[in-house]
Amino acid sequence: MQVGYLQFCPSFGETERNLEAMERIATEHARGVDLLVLPELATSGYLFLSRDEVHRYAEPAAGGPTHRCLEKIARDLGAAVISGFAERAGERLYNSALLLRPDGSSHVYRKAQLFLDEKDWFEAGDSPLEPVAAAGTDLGLMICFDWYYPEVARLLSLRGARILCHPSNLVLPHCPEAMRTRCLENRVYAITANRTGTDRRGDRSLSFIGSSQVVGPDGRVLLRAPSEGTHVGIVEIDPERAADKNLTGRNVWTEDRRSDLFGGLSG
Amino acid sequence: MQVGYLQFCPSFGETERNLEAMERIATEHARGVDLLVLPELATSGYLFLSRDEVHRYAEPAAGGPTHRCLEKIARDLGAAVISGFAERAGERLYNSALLLRPDGSSHVYRKAQLFLDEKDWFEAGDSPLEPVAAAGTDLGLMICFDWYYPEVARLLSLRGARILCHPSNLVLPHCPEAMRTRCLENRVYAITANRTGTDRRGDRSLSFIGSSQVVGPDGRVLLRAPSEGTHVGIVEIDPERAADKNLTGRNVWTEDRRSDLFGGLSG
Repeated sequence: MQVGYLQFCPSFGETERNLEAMERIATEHARGVDLLVLPELATSGYLFLSRDEVHRYAEPAAGGPTHRCLEKIARDLGAAVISGFAERAGERLYNSALLLRPDGSSHVYRKAQLFLDEKDWFEAGDSPLEPVAAAGTDLGLMICFDWYYPEVARLLSLRGARILCHPSNLVLPHCPEAMRTRCLENRVYAITANRTGTDRRGDRSLSFIGSSQVVGPDGRVLLRAPSEGTHVGIVEIDPERAADKNLTGRNVWTEDRRSDLFGGLSG
Repeated sequence: MQVGYLQFCPSFGETERNLEAMERIATEHARGVDLLVLPELATSGYLFLSRDEVHRYAEPAAGGPTHRCLEKIARDLGAAVISGFAERAGERLYNSALLLRPDGSSHVYRKAQLFLDEKDWFEAGDSPLEPVAAAGTDLGLMICFDWYYPEVARLLSLRGARILCHPSNLVLPHCPEAMRTRCLENRVYAITANRTGTDRRGDRSLSFIGSSQVVGPDGRVLLRAPSEGTHVGIVEIDPERAADKNLTGRNVWTEDRRSDLFGGLSG
C-alpha cells in the first residue's frame, strides 16, 4: 500500500483557507495514496491565546467544515485521510484527530497527553488507545506529544496497530529520532505529519520543525521531509511486515515481554 | 558525583584473567569515581555453547570470585561497582549483575529480557524492577537487552531510580541511540557499559559494538567510548537533576502521565 504525509504551514485562524490548501495539495500531489496523514490542528493553527479563542475555531467532529473537507479528499483520493483539528463537543474542547474513509465513515481520536499551554485550551483526551480499521489494515492514532509517553505507542501496538498515524505540531527537536525507537521497540510503521512555519500571536510566537517522516518496523527512516516548506511524501509499505514481532529470530517481543514484572504501569 | 563505565574485552572462559583485568583497569584508571559500571558477563565471556558450559563458569552471587573481586575494587575505589556475571543459584542459572558497595554490602539483579540463545543458557530473571540505594542515590539496574522493553526503564524510573546502570554485551546497533530516548522519556541518567571484541567458539562467533556511554536526563550523550578498545569514561553528574521530571515548565511527566488509559500494560 501507498502511505504518506502532507506537511504544510496552516494560517492561524483561517480555517477556510487552510481547508482549501489541504484539499488542493492533497488532490494535486497525493494521487494513488491509500493512507494520508496531515498535521495536528491543521485547520485552525496552533497558538491560541485563550480558551475562548479555541471555542471560536473549534467545530464538531461530525458535519463541521473539517469533516466535510476530509470526506471530500478521502472520496476523491480513494484513501483514508487523517488530520488534526480543534474539536468542540458541547462545552468540551479537545485536540483531536479525525479519520475519514473513502466511504464517508469516520473516527475521532482525542489527544491523551497535552503539551504546555494546551492544558489551558483543551480537555485531556478520553479516547481508548485502541487501533481502528481503515485502508485495509489497523491504524493507531496518536497526536504529537503522545510520542513522549512510550505507553501510548506500546498499547496501540499490543492491541494490533500496524501503522501509527501521528499528526503533529512539533516544536522540540527530539521526536523524529525518538519515533525510530517507538517503531523498533513495537515493530510497527509510523507516519508523523508535522507542520512548518511560525504562529505569531500578539507578543508570542512558536515555530515548528517540519521533518515529517515515515519510519519502518526496523526503525529505519523510509522518508523524511525538510524542516521547512510544503511537502507530500509517499512511500510503498507492506503493513503485514508489522505483524512480524520477531526481532532476532528468537525474540518475538509480544511473547517474550515480561508483563508479570510490569505491574505498576497502569491503573 | 563522578560516574563512569569500564569498557574492555573479556576472554571467554578465563575468569581469573578477566577479574585481574577488571581490577587492574579500575584501580589504575577509575580513581575518584563514585559509581562504576562494567559490561554484562564480564567475568565469563558471552558466547556459551551449552547450558553445561554456563554451569562450569557460573558462580554464586555471594562469596564467589566475582563477588570477592568487586568487593576489593569497591573498597579500594570507595565506589559502588556493578558488573555482569553468570550466576548459579542451586541448579538455576541467571544472567545477573552484581552491585558491591564500599562497605562490602551487595545486591543482585537478574536480567528480565533474555536475548537470542541466552534462552538456552539462563532462566529469565525474577528480580523486581525496584531501584537500589548506593553511591548516595538510587540506581536502576538493567542488563543489555532489557533496554528494548521501555517498560523496564519506565518502572525503575517511576519507582525513583536516578541513574540506570546498564551492563551490556551489545551486538545490534540500535541501543546507544535508543538509550537517549529512554533517558529523555524518563528524565534519568544512564550508564551503558558495553564490551568490545569478538567471542569465537567452535564455528560460531559474535562481535560486540563497544560505544559505552553516559547519557543525561535531557537525552544528551555526555560521554561515548569508541567501538573498539579498552576505555574508562568518567564524568561529573548531579543525580538530583534526575529528580526533576519537568520537560517544558508545564509537563511533569510523572504527574501528567495518563495511567488511567494505560490498563493492559501489566499483569
